[in-house]
Amino acid sequence: MAKFLTNRDENYAQWYNDLVIKADLAENSAVRGCMVIKPNGYAIWEKIQAELDRMFKATGHVNAYFPLFIPKSFFSREAAHVKGFAKECAIVTHYRLKNDETGKNIIVDPSAKLEEELIIRPTSETIIWNSYKNWIHSYRDLPILINQWANVVRWEMRTRLFLRTAEFLWQEGHTAHATREEAIEETLKMINVYAEFAENFMALPVIKGYKSENERFAGALDTYAIEALMQDGKALQAGTSHFLGQNFAKAFDVQFTDKTGKLDYVWATSWGLSTRTIGALIMAHSDNHGLVIPPKLAPVQVIIIPIFKSPGQLSDLSAFAEKIKTDLEKAGLTVKYDDRDNNKPGWKFSDYELKGVPVRIAIGPRDLENMTVEVARRDTLKKVTIPAKEINSFIPPLLDEIQKNIYNKALKFRKENTHYLDKWSDFLEILDNQGGFIMAHWDGTSETEEKIKQETKATIRCIPFDSPAEEGKCIYSGKPSERRVLFARSY
Amino acid sequence: MAKFLTNRDENYAQWYNDLVIKADLAENSAVRGCMVIKPNGYAIWEKIQAELDRMFKATGHVNAYFPLFIPKSFFSREAAHVKGFAKECAIVTHYRLKNDETGKNIIVDPSAKLEEELIIRPTSETIIWNSYKNWIHSYRDLPILINQWANVVRWEMRTRLFLRTAEFLWQEGHTAHATREEAIEETLKMINVYAEFAENFMALPVIKGYKSENERFAGALDTYAIEALMQDGKALQAGTSHFLGQNFAKAFDVQFTDKTGKLDYVWATSWGLSTRTIGALIMAHSDNHGLVIPPKLAPVQVIIIPIFKSPGQLSDLSAFAEKIKTDLEKAGLTVKYDDRDNNKPGWKFSDYELKGVPVRIAIGPRDLENMTVEVARRDTLKKVTIPAKEINSFIPPLLDEIQKNIYNKALKFRKENTHYLDKWSDFLEILDNQGGFIMAHWDGTSETEEKIKQETKATIRCIPFDSPAEEGKCIYSGKPSERRVLFARSY
Repeated sequence: MAKFLTNRDENYAQWYNDLVIKADLAENSAVRGCMVIKPNGYAIWEKIQAELDRMFKATGHVNAYFPLFIPKSFFSREAAHVKGFAKECAIVTHYRLKNDETGKNIIVDPSAKLEEELIIRPTSETIIWNSYKNWIHSYRDLPILINQWANVVRWEMRTRLFLRTAEFLWQEGHTAHATREEAIEETLKMINVYAEFAENFMALPVIKGYKSENERFAGALDTYAIEALMQDGKALQAGTSHFLGQNFAKAFDVQFTDKTGKLDYVWATSWGLSTRTIGALIMAHSDNHGLVIPPKLAPVQVIIIPIFKSPGQLSDLSAFAEKIKTDLEKAGLTVKYDDRDNNKPGWKFSDYELKGVPVRIAIGPRDLENMTVEVARRDTLKKVTIPAKEINSFIPPLLDEIQKNIYNKALKFRKENTHYLDKWSDFLEILDNQGGFIMAHWDGTSETEEKIKQETKATIRCIPFDSPAEEGKCIYSGKPSERRVLFARSY
Repeated sequence: MAKFLTNRDENYAQWYNDLVIKADLAENSAVRGCMVIKPNGYAIWEKIQAELDRMFKATGHVNAYFPLFIPKSFFSREAAHVKGFAKECAIVTHYRLKNDETGKNIIVDPSAKLEEELIIRPTSETIIWNSYKNWIHSYRDLPILINQWANVVRWEMRTRLFLRTAEFLWQEGHTAHATREEAIEETLKMINVYAEFAENFMALPVIKGYKSENERFAGALDTYAIEALMQDGKALQAGTSHFLGQNFAKAFDVQFTDKTGKLDYVWATSWGLSTRTIGALIMAHSDNHGLVIPPKLAPVQVIIIPIFKSPGQLSDLSAFAEKIKTDLEKAGLTVKYDDRDNNKPGWKFSDYELKGVPVRIAIGPRDLENMTVEVARRDTLKKVTIPAKEINSFIPPLLDEIQKNIYNKALKFRKENTHYLDKWSDFLEILDNQGGFIMAHWDGTSETEEKIKQETKATIRCIPFDSPAEEGKCIYSGKPSERRVLFARSY
């Protein structure tokens, strides 16, 4: 166990924070609520971006870029939308600094006040639909399938590295369609892309479902989400896809002529996934030794460490190591050889465990003699010595196995911590003593949902797409229910 | 000539603006001075990003992300820096909106005023060096070689799409070093990376050199730049690399212990290249038919257009076209097949010329019969018919040739428009009647430089690295000079 990490089972929140800091992923900045994403953390984001971007393009989307600033008046046009975001906006009011009368201090120049205040985008529906208005006239202009990689700002009062920060990085898709059906199909397609990404790349099993009305995106008719279970028994929403109906088209007067010549408002979707997923990645898989990063998202997949006592030994080992590195790189892996002489091998072992490199290859003078290497996997910490000539047939399948094992472990954890409950006393007991996902009946009313939230801090994470029809009684009100929904406390 | 474009030779500025709009690269947004980068324009930026990012990583750099906001007090710490940027800042003063008394209007909540105003980063030296302070203690922590891809805001009063916008996208490198020599070496290395990128990818010949004191980055001891010549005879600065000395280390008190145990301030560089380069790309190569994009940065390199009269013909041609497409894609090219039936081939020809696709392959029924295709290149507009079986040996070298030809054409233009002048009357005459680069002697004083600027609007673009020692007299003051410098009017 890494001594400088708080024990995960004793204080999960502190363990998480320690880990983010010690593994050099991110840190708090001097600006309240804003983080610095350090190179180790950003490298994970780059891997996430590369995979998602590929998936977006494979499903017909293109990238574009819209302004950071949203005029206040735009923001106000969609009533539910402004209600959802008004309380947490960063607002630009001036555009110049100047020296004060003493000439010693820099102050905001009062004469450089903007006529209309600008909001830093918390999300871009309004500025984008104001542009789409000029782009869309006929059904021939549809669909528009655009994604944007951007920073957004929500002035959160309580922030945590990656999970909730005033500024964060994300992608936001904004699509425009001729029909309701096509927009719903797109909304569904993108939640499936997110789920596929979460399961295949993040090694994170997720539950896809509808959000209840209370939990919907501000301005959406329907929100689909993927929900994952963290190791402390709390849920984390890892991506959302919104069916916006004609709300934004009406707010910005975006109409088109359909094939029959009839004017209609355009149908919209939006969908986003943010740097928050890095928090999910950490919380779902990591342990008391540090990060566990699934090989498909690991910036370095294999670390090679030489064990040597003299510069002469190092020189012999380096030739051996460089050959291994080159061979593995030819097989498409990302490999690093750490030949620094200012830290002992044991220190390096711990450090790369902390940083979550999936596979470690250690080579010492005896390995060189026997033409063997020691291979250790980060997920199980198990070690095995193999002939050097087998490295290229051994390591790539091992990375696949690690990827699968991390997923299976998370899936097993979720299964063990998903509770089908029918009694309110059980609901309370499980929440307080075990946590996890609770599948329970709900009467479908916001009122009940709100009461449950007030009494237990648990919310409806989603109504799973695959929750089967099942007659039952609401766990809180006892009123009739047609299917179970997913409750949990959440991040 | 594309009829809807203003003639380049009649009104260059209007031609440029028409082209950006008609080729669907970008447009002005509802927010003053901010542009929307449309998918066609953003696709070029993605190509630029991919190549530069690869080059940065190959030279040992890693990416990270620092906050959008800079506390006003940080901004003020480096005196020259704040002087340079204070007049064009977007300033966040509040963090909440609310309903007014009538409940009908949304206003800024006066009770949500920030204690300290936040500046939207116009560049990130201050926020980054405030972080580096905590990262650097010993020479072992150096060098730090970090790059950031980000948006920045400079509240420009007169804006033009890509060339000068209030918000723009860029990358900014910020490095920290133990010695002056190492920092200067880095500054030079990165201007060389920019020059290599400009010449090899943008097909844009550039002159590398030092900026005069007047034109240096606010806070730098030295600024190196690459300068390119546009087709209207004006210069454009396409990238800069700054040697910052110890200025920011002193402003943020960043000291380190060197190998001998002595405390010293850290040495710094920063370097940036922005979406402005897309403007340079357009202005350097394009013509009255539209964009000319060098193949290495073209989002689509080959467009295939079928010429057909009936759906049956189209079906036969499509099988042929898809085979060509697949073969070329296997060779690593980006190919699009446009089989839309709502536009005539002639319309498509013009449209892809406008959008600058380097190579067009047209196939008609007779081609199918003869197993030939017609290949047209965008740079020269020349067409040739070749046997279909030669496509894969013909097209890749053709793209290389187009890349080279675009570069050579720009280089020839620059040579023809570079004037070595020694008389002030010639200087004035050339500037007013021909434009271009002027290599002339200068006495080295800011005073003379300023007077030349006031009288002619020409500035010293740079003191070229390779300008040979040559005794001469300043073209304006007649005082002695040791080498020629590069003058031009500029964007």
